[in-house]
Amino acid sequence: MNIKGVNLGNWLVLEKWMSPALFEGTTAEDEYYLPTQLSPEAYEARIKIHRSEYITERDFVTIKSMGMESVRIPVPYFIFGDRKPFIGCIEELDKAFNWAEKYGLTILIDLHTVPLSQNGFDNGGISGVCKWAQNPDEVEFALSVLERLAKRYGNRKGLFGIQPLNEPITENMWETMDIQNRYAPADQEMAKGSAPITMKFLRQFYLDAYDRISAYMPKDKYVVIHDGFELMEWKDFMQEEKYSNVILDTHQYLMVAEARGCSQTIEGYLKYIREELEPQITEMEKYFPVICGEWCLFNSLACGCDTKGGQSVLNGVEGSRQESFSPEKKKEIYEALAKAQLELWEKGSGYYYWSYKLLTDTVNTPGWIGWDSWDLGRCYDFGWFPADKGGC
Amino acid sequence: MNIKGVNLGNWLVLEKWMSPALFEGTTAEDEYYLPTQLSPEAYEARIKIHRSEYITERDFVTIKSMGMESVRIPVPYFIFGDRKPFIGCIEELDKAFNWAEKYGLTILIDLHTVPLSQNGFDNGGISGVCKWAQNPDEVEFALSVLERLAKRYGNRKGLFGIQPLNEPITENMWETMDIQNRYAPADQEMAKGSAPITMKFLRQFYLDAYDRISAYMPKDKYVVIHDGFELMEWKDFMQEEKYSNVILDTHQYLMVAEARGCSQTIEGYLKYIREELEPQITEMEKYFPVICGEWCLFNSLACGCDTKGGQSVLNGVEGSRQESFSPEKKKEIYEALAKAQLELWEKGSGYYYWSYKLLTDTVNTPGWIGWDSWDLGRCYDFGWFPADKGGC
Repeated sequence: MNIKGVNLGNWLVLEKWMSPALFEGTTAEDEYYLPTQLSPEAYEARIKIHRSEYITERDFVTIKSMGMESVRIPVPYFIFGDRKPFIGCIEELDKAFNWAEKYGLTILIDLHTVPLSQNGFDNGGISGVCKWAQNPDEVEFALSVLERLAKRYGNRKGLFGIQPLNEPITENMWETMDIQNRYAPADQEMAKGSAPITMKFLRQFYLDAYDRISAYMPKDKYVVIHDGFELMEWKDFMQEEKYSNVILDTHQYLMVAEARGCSQTIEGYLKYIREELEPQITEMEKYFPVICGEWCLFNSLACGCDTKGGQSVLNGVEGSRQESFSPEKKKEIYEALAKAQLELWEKGSGYYYWSYKLLTDTVNTPGWIGWDSWDLGRCYDFGWFPADKGGC
Repeated sequence: MNIKGVNLGNWLVLEKWMSPALFEGTTAEDEYYLPTQLSPEAYEARIKIHRSEYITERDFVTIKSMGMESVRIPVPYFIFGDRKPFIGCIEELDKAFNWAEKYGLTILIDLHTVPLSQNGFDNGGISGVCKWAQNPDEVEFALSVLERLAKRYGNRKGLFGIQPLNEPITENMWETMDIQNRYAPADQEMAKGSAPITMKFLRQFYLDAYDRISAYMPKDKYVVIHDGFELMEWKDFMQEEKYSNVILDTHQYLMVAEARGCSQTIEGYLKYIREELEPQITEMEKYFPVICGEWCLFNSLACGCDTKGGQSVLNGVEGSRQESFSPEKKKEIYEALAKAQLELWEKGSGYYYWSYKLLTDTVNTPGWIGWDSWDLGRCYDFGWFPADKGGC
């Protein structure tokens, strides 16, 4: 198994930096606060038009033509429409399955948010809060969502698998990302008691999720578990035959390497990829198929400034206002990083790029030079990402 | 001069069939009636999100990578925001100029609608009504919009030219399209007195528009006049040296050929293109640079049913519910028609495909099989349209 895919980020789970117009006129930093600052009518109109336009049939055609085989679709915990005021989006996922099957792609369903959050990231749904794991009712709710997803799509040809939880944060990453400073909570009271998730909790959750999902999903579909940012800690987990359809997912961004001191040069990045990442992935591949479910070409070097671990003007870090490199030089940087990373994911069991599309405007909004590298469509069209025309 | 380009249809001027979600929950068939059936808040939210997501920087990157040189942007008469309840969109056009200039594309600004309409098409803004030319105040208003556009963009590097009016309808096409039956007016009273535009009026309008635009636009930019669906009637018009920067624009759709009896076979279409269209275009090229400002690969043959001149389920014509041909056979049809048409436009002075993008869902909505051929992005990704990677 070696999968080539791309994430459909910001379609059903919002991230402000990827489509700022959705948040215009509000001070909301995340999806949780958006409906608190808009009338129900305006909220619904924004969300519905966004969902109907951001990803459509034509994108599945494009993704197939890029040579991709699969899409990872982040979904929110309110996908079934049972958590007001949020609006469900199961119909959108239904449509996506029909598109995927028509054009020969598969879907990895990724539960990207849970109530009270599993990481405190803005993309976890509510910045600076991480209390889900402490709340048994909400843990059960997440399991029930997974169960319903498995029931609905378990036997679909277009299903690649289900990922029970995106990026549950454990202690080391909690500190690296300095969560409650980088993602300041809007409501200090609600954030109080937030803490990283323990490995012990996470293991039990994955065991439970596996059983709940497997009741409705045949063995030729995958259960994909995120490593909790501790790639090497899973050697003794789910090694029994029963779990033969489990994939280990690790997210590897160069900006995190930068935050840990990787030098911001082509050589620095390549050294990191080859000398730090590669041994870990090849080692873990002995225990699980290992995919890199999120990565991209973004790096501070091509931005022309230190982004302090991938922080943008939204985090108060001023970006570059003009290009620091010629288009040729940028291409050289990105091509080298694409090649090295793709080679590594090939040694594992494949990848999903983050992300297929973002609306970030590097021309009309100051400080965003270099952020277009998060957008696979643009990387592909610029020639930064190697073309592998699959054809439809 | 030989221009390769594509229309950014349905971005700033709406067409229901190209993004049905914008019209959901209303009975509006056109842009005019949309705000009458939505609250101001919901209307604004839908329009703003649509504009911010439908066309963005990344689309300019894609268009450039397809080898295109120019985009034709349909704009509404209310672009400056002075015709309530419609919402202006000059900021969107400003952004487009910045994107175009960054990525080496040019823009043809196309005034696509005028108050009370110049053609009665849904895409003229108000179905079944065609009374603009009878109203001198509104004729003057259109001229003032053109003047303001020339003033704002006349000296921009990214400006290709300005088209004073899209598809003013004259007598023959008025009858061929059977306007008031095909595009039934919502308000019979308002539609009363609608009539095709006379060639005499149109000529005078173009002369006036030329002078008003030229006051603010240097001679190296073009004034593009639509032929009013009478390609051969312009031999004695604007032949003086003064008008050396005028381009004649003709729109040529195979569905119109079908409505006039062209046989729905590859041979029939090729015969029409080579024996009927080609002599006209090469003849008129003696008088003006002639571009085909709208055309596409859409045809009834590939749809698998007679669309009666390009009518869809929205016009009450049932389309195909499943594919009639294999992907290989469809590709063969479209490739042949692309080749023949592109060869012809090359003998003229170039083309703009209609359109770059549409959201029509051929998988989840019955009856739309074959309508994806209006979408250059999909045609390109399917390999129906010849790839000519320009690179960015």
